[in-house]
Amino acid sequence: MRQELHTLHVRTHGKGLVPITRPVIDWVASTGIGTGLLTLWCRHTSASLTVQENADPTVREDIARYFEALVPEDPSRYIHDDEGPDDMPAHLRTMLTNTQLSIPVADGCPVLGTWQGLYLFEHRRMAHRRDIVLHIIGA
Amino acid sequence: MRQELHTLHVRTHGKGLVPITRPVIDWVASTGIGTGLLTLWCRHTSASLTVQENADPTVREDIARYFEALVPEDPSRYIHDDEGPDDMPAHLRTMLTNTQLSIPVADGCPVLGTWQGLYLFEHRRMAHRRDIVLHIIGA
Amino acid sequence: MRQELHTLHVRTHGKGLVPITRPVIDWVASTGIGTGLLTLWCRHTSASLTVQENADPTVREDIARYFEALVPEDPSRYIHDDEGPDDMPAHLRTMLTNTQLSIPVADGCPVLGTWQGLYLFEHRRMAHRRDIVLHIIGA
Repeated sequence: MRQELHTLHVRTHGKGLVPITRPVIDWVASTGIGTGLLTLWCRHTSASLTVQENADPTVREDIARYFEALVPEDPSRYIHDDEGPDDMPAHLRTMLTNTQLSIPVADGCPVLGTWQGLYLFEHRRMAHRRDIVLHIIGA
Repeated sequence: MRQELHTLHVRTHGKGLVPITRPVIDWVASTGIGTGLLTLWCRHTSASLTVQENADPTVREDIARYFEALVPEDPSRYIHDDEGPDDMPAHLRTMLTNTQLSIPVADGCPVLGTWQGLYLFEHRRMAHRRDIVLHIIGA
Repeated sequence: MRQELHTLHVRTHGKGLVPITRPVIDWVASTGIGTGLLTLWCRHTSASLTVQENADPTVREDIARYFEALVPEDPSRYIHDDEGPDDMPAHLRTMLTNTQLSIPVADGCPVLGTWQGLYLFEHRRMAHRRDIVLHIIGA
């Protein structure tokens, strides 16, 4: 049984879902671990992780629109706005999605379903560099 | 230290919470692992996992009603509707709940609280067969 | 490779976020494990876990207000009210946040980002004692 750690750096270009399945799968393969548990940790409070359909790009448009309505960028609703009107909504959207995902690994690959893709969900308007720590334990 | 993997197949019959605590606990017991970490991964983007009160069945009715209101099946709100009006709401309800749960195991059993039950949350109207991958690592 | 288990008892005083970063980090340090995976499991269906900004206290006020609006304490909406009008909203707020978090550990410390703090999110009006099971596996 052994472990590996790695940090994935992801460039974002404003709000939206950025696919990360490929670099995550590639890193798992590079560790040579066949069976184990993979964990992704997003080190931010204004960006999050999610699993979504990887086929139809309109799904991502619908997600973006839904979250705009669920957590509106309406300054009258929030006290905290140090970094602008998208600051507090970004924190809330992060809370409602995931900061962490743990995925079993079998045959050297995370056991994603056919339609499942991994995404970083950027909640800020500006471009950012986001860090996701990857950890795997297994054999 | 060792690991085991297993896939739980769950039949659903339209929207709602399906209890899975019993088969999960039974599988953990069958592995013979006393202390460890159990992970559940739902391999779908239209069904999810959740932890909820296991006593009063009206809790499940309230949950169903709440999610109908939180993510309405209103076709005018979504572009993606390949599989009908419950398609995109199913993805969004999945995002707002869990695709994965990891639970410490002590004395051969997941450390659920007295009132905690594990559920598969089906978000589609039609019956489905859902796959949940179980992974345990421990000793 | 080895494991440790511990239960953290947290006193709450009505609704709101209670910081738990310090006792969690201290316990990880006490295990002497340098690299591994830490898991927190909240054993309740009316309190949850979340990761949030640890700097500006107004963030916590905004979060409290947002969740009051997202899941209103309106008795006409729920059947289940065994323990009062905050009973069912507490379950729903738990579902929308986290019962569990798993965090990679490096150099003897969870890899939290600069602005990330760990919180117990109490959803009931009354004071409670909440149990969070901590599990670490690593070397």
